[in-house]
Formats: sequence, C-alpha cells, structure tokens
Amino acid sequence: MSITVVGSIAYDAVETPFGVRERMLGGAATHFALAASLLDEVRLVGPVGDDFGDGDLAVLQTRGSNIDDVERIAGGKTFFWSGRYGWDLNTRETLDTQLNVFEHFAPKLSQASQDCDALFLANIQPGLQLQVREQCRAARFVALDSMNLWIDIARDELLEVIGRVDCLMLNDEELRQLTGKPNLISAAREILNGAPHAPSVVVAKQGEYGSALVTADDFFALPAYPLHEVVDPTGAGDSFAGGFVGFIASQIDGGVTTAVLRNAMAYGTAIASFNVERFGTEGLENVDVAAIRGRVSDLYDFAHFDPIAVELKA
Amino acid sequence: MSITVVGSIAYDAVETPFGVRERMLGGAATHFALAASLLDEVRLVGPVGDDFGDGDLAVLQTRGSNIDDVERIAGGKTFFWSGRYGWDLNTRETLDTQLNVFEHFAPKLSQASQDCDALFLANIQPGLQLQVREQCRAARFVALDSMNLWIDIARDELLEVIGRVDCLMLNDEELRQLTGKPNLISAAREILNGAPHAPSVVVAKQGEYGSALVTADDFFALPAYPLHEVVDPTGAGDSFAGGFVGFIASQIDGGVTTAVLRNAMAYGTAIASFNVERFGTEGLENVDVAAIRGRVSDLYDFAHFDPIAVELKA
Repeated sequence: MSITVVGSIAYDAVETPFGVRERMLGGAATHFALAASLLDEVRLVGPVGDDFGDGDLAVLQTRGSNIDDVERIAGGKTFFWSGRYGWDLNTRETLDTQLNVFEHFAPKLSQASQDCDALFLANIQPGLQLQVREQCRAARFVALDSMNLWIDIARDELLEVIGRVDCLMLNDEELRQLTGKPNLISAAREILNGAPHAPSVVVAKQGEYGSALVTADDFFALPAYPLHEVVDPTGAGDSFAGGFVGFIASQIDGGVTTAVLRNAMAYGTAIASFNVERFGTEGLENVDVAAIRGRVSDLYDFAHFDPIAVELKA
Repeated sequence: MSITVVGSIAYDAVETPFGVRERMLGGAATHFALAASLLDEVRLVGPVGDDFGDGDLAVLQTRGSNIDDVERIAGGKTFFWSGRYGWDLNTRETLDTQLNVFEHFAPKLSQASQDCDALFLANIQPGLQLQVREQCRAARFVALDSMNLWIDIARDELLEVIGRVDCLMLNDEELRQLTGKPNLISAAREILNGAPHAPSVVVAKQGEYGSALVTADDFFALPAYPLHEVVDPTGAGDSFAGGFVGFIASQIDGGVTTAVLRNAMAYGTAIASFNVERFGTEGLENVDVAAIRGRVSDLYDFAHFDPIAVELKA
C-alpha cells in the first residue's frame, strides 16, 4: 500500500531544558514520513527552498520514502519555525515563524501520489488540504490535522475538508475550540455527527497523557509511553500520526476495523516515543524495530488488567 | 476488613457550568467514605460543628459506615469551602475556605478505628497525618493525599509522613512540585527511592485524563471514564481514592499484588465517574452496583487491544 503526506518540511530552531538546536530538519511531513515509513511506502509532498541541503533530502528518503513531489522553489527559503519549551515540556512558546516557500505553496501531486491508498493532510491551510483531498480520490483512509489558527481564520473551509476525511486528529484544546463543547466525548460526537458528511474517527492528541480514539460505537485510550526523559516534543503529534496512519495503510485491504484502529494507536504511541527521546529527526532516523515492537507490547501491558471479582455493597 | 479515613467533612458551595449549590455536604472523608463503603467497612474520623445536620450524619453512614469518631465540636462551625469551576471544568478557583472546627482539630481515634486494616490519610496538615499514622500500627495498607499548600509550608513534616505510608496519591502538578522533577516517571522514581523509608506505590491523579500508577517494577494507566457530561468534579480524587483503597482493603489478606493494584485503579476510576455525574454526594449515595461493574468492564475494554502482527521496515 502507499501513503501520501502533504505538509511542511522545515528547519526548526528549538530550545528545551535538555539543549538548544539552532537549525535542524523538521516539519510535519518530515516527522510523519519518518514514522509511517516504518510501516508502509510513503510519498512526501511539500516545498523546500534553495537552502535545503542534500543531506536533509537524504533524511526525507529514510526507509525508501519517495521525494519526487518535494518541490525545490528556486530563489525561495525553506519554512522556518523557532520555539522554546518550558521546564516540564507542557508549554511551548513560538518565537518565530517564517512561511517562506509555504506562502505561495500550491500542492502539485504526481499521478503516483494521487493514487495513494492512504492520505495524511498535515496541518496546512484548509483550502490546500481540500485541493489535495480532491486529487486523491482513490484513497481509502484520509486523516487530517489542523491548528487553532485555521479554526480562527478559516473555519468554514476547515469544516468543509473535515467533512471529506475519515479521521480528524486534533489536540484536546483544538477539539474544544472547533466544537464549542467542553468535554472530549461531547466534542467528538459533535464532529462524528457533522452534516452532510463527517469523519468516522476522531483522535484526540493529549500530549504527555497519550491519546484517545472515539468512533460512533467505540472509545479507546492509551497513555503516552512512560519515559524518564523527554528531550524534544517537537513532531510528537506528527510521528504519532505517522505510526497511526502507517499501521492502518498496512492493513487497509482487511478494512479499518476496531482492532486495526486500536493497534494503530499503539504503534503511533510507541513510534512517537522514539521521536521525543532525541532532538528533531534523530530519534526516528535510526530506530531499532525490535525496540518498537517491545514498546507496543509494553503498552498492551501498561493498560491491561486481569479482572478480579469482588463483592459490592448495594 | 476495615478502613479508617481521617479528613475533612465539610459544607461546600460550588458553581459549575451545570449549576450552583449554595451549601451541600462535601469534604474529602465524606467522598472517600461514600466510595470505599461500596467495597468494605469504613470508619470516618473528623470534626463537624453544631451546624452539622442529622440528615448529613445519615449520609455519612451510607452503606453502614461508622461515625463514632465523627466529633461534634460544641460551639463550632463545620469546615466550609467554596469554589467555582471553569467552562471545561479543568480550572478551579477557590472562592473561600473557612477552617472553622478544623483549625484546632486533633484527631482522636477509638480503638476500633486504630485497629483498621487499611488507612486513608486524606489531605490535612501533615503533622496530624503523622499522629494518625502512628496510632494505626496494624494497618497493612496506608495511602496519603496532600496538596500544594503543605508542600509549600510543611514540607519536612510531609516528607516524614510520606516515608511512613505505602501509597502516595497526588496530582501531577503536586508530584512535580514535591520532587522538582518535571516528568511523572522521574518524579515517581524520586519518591519510590526516598530514604530512609519510602512508599512502594505512587498514584498520579490526572483529572480528565485518568490516573497512572508507578511502582518499582510496574507502570499502569487508565483513562478517566468517558462521560458526556461531568456535572461537578468536586470529590473526584477522594472518591477515586475510596474505590482504590476500598478494593485493596477487600483483598488485603491475599497481599497487595500488581493485579490487586490494577483492579483497584479500575474500581477507583469507575466509582469516581459516578461521583462527578451529579453534584456533591448525590452520585454515590444511591449508586447501582451493577452499573459500577459495567463501567469497570468498560474500562477493561477501553484500554485493551488484541495485538495484530505487522512487518516493520528496518
């Protein structure tokens, strides 16, 4: 099967309690591809500038990901983001955002990218997400990420594209902002009941608390993988999405069953844990697949209990 | 088996998006007892004032809980707390705290309360917790809650009593504040390795995200029970503790095994979900035990997946 991801390829400057990086490869499509490529064939779509290094192009191609649709804009500069994380890594301050080549980006998908089985619309302007969605008519599973900015300034377009995807992946705060509902379950139901079309899956990204999955008839939650040290949370959500969509793509011929969705959550969680243990792309460039399997198995155990029967007083 | 709980019995004034209550029965010991009494025999220890109603005394005795050590202070007024919750119930503002009879409270335990098998030291001044701990020498499982105030102003006493209990139950922020460690696992390890004595179990209360349990060789996490509507979160942590300690007490002759701890987390989570669905004590006064069993069973399912084997690319 094949997965197309459309989104940012960036240089990031990041400051965390564990160190500072002045300029390192980042971006949503980058983190997604590094994760999803563990599970399936990935094609990246996104623009870079003249300044984008060959070494970084090679990183995008990790585990065979295809970069035919990574467009190098002559005279342009690569998207740049700079941010600083607080002591407990739960707060993030954006210091600088330079759209650069992203400012006039119009996604051009090759036929091969359009023919994908699964599509991930990373966080970009919802109008562009819609254009891409329309080009990938054969995709059997489409997931979408967004952010508070687009909920604020492009709400109608965002709602339109949400109605055209299978899975909406947002953090808790974005789900509240989008729906006006204060609680996860009521927010998810609002989305799942959207008219005239609605996603069938809502994934709430909850940072250090893990993630939750809501469908019309299912609820599932997993904690984040418990780590002694999170070094750099940048890309956590996109690498989670990569593991999640990657797993689903790998199983798509059997259908997107409850079991597939739940395992996809576990693979997303396990793979994201390697992303955040190192700066930038370091954690997933060379990751031990046996270690990933080990963490998926740990996650099974961390959330499992063998019921003990007990009397309850009425 | 029998459980003694020492802590506040209070009147609460609460404002949530779902309504206002000017004066209703509350307090940590109250919420704990209503939960733990579903699973075992409970004895409450705490002071009330002349203003404490007979109807409220009857509520404390729900499911046979013993109130011989609920001391009515002549001329005193019952502890009063007033608070307002934000739109999404994740923020809480304390509007008023009147210690009243709690100001000069010195716990007096009858022999029966001292002879408990399990003890819960709800959030009160750590010096008092220590006095109670020393009176209950036969207790085979002792759990303790505290708060930011005591970490600030009575840190040494708090550390001393923490060293004398089996289980520390705090929220994430309190765990960070107590240990100076930014992350749950490192904070929990700091506590579990405390010298010269340390608890063997740390439970992190995570509000809408549920709870996590850390021991020297185990990690376990459960989401909060997914509800469409949380009406009043007051007492969520204490009713969770009641279900948790109540389950452990009911199984104490078999030892506090990993399986017991994990089931205790599930019972605590399920029982707390009934607490927050209604105002004050309403949710647990008349609760359907079959519904509790149903939610424990749901929790098993919500966090469980049947592993699907998949290829990973190296």
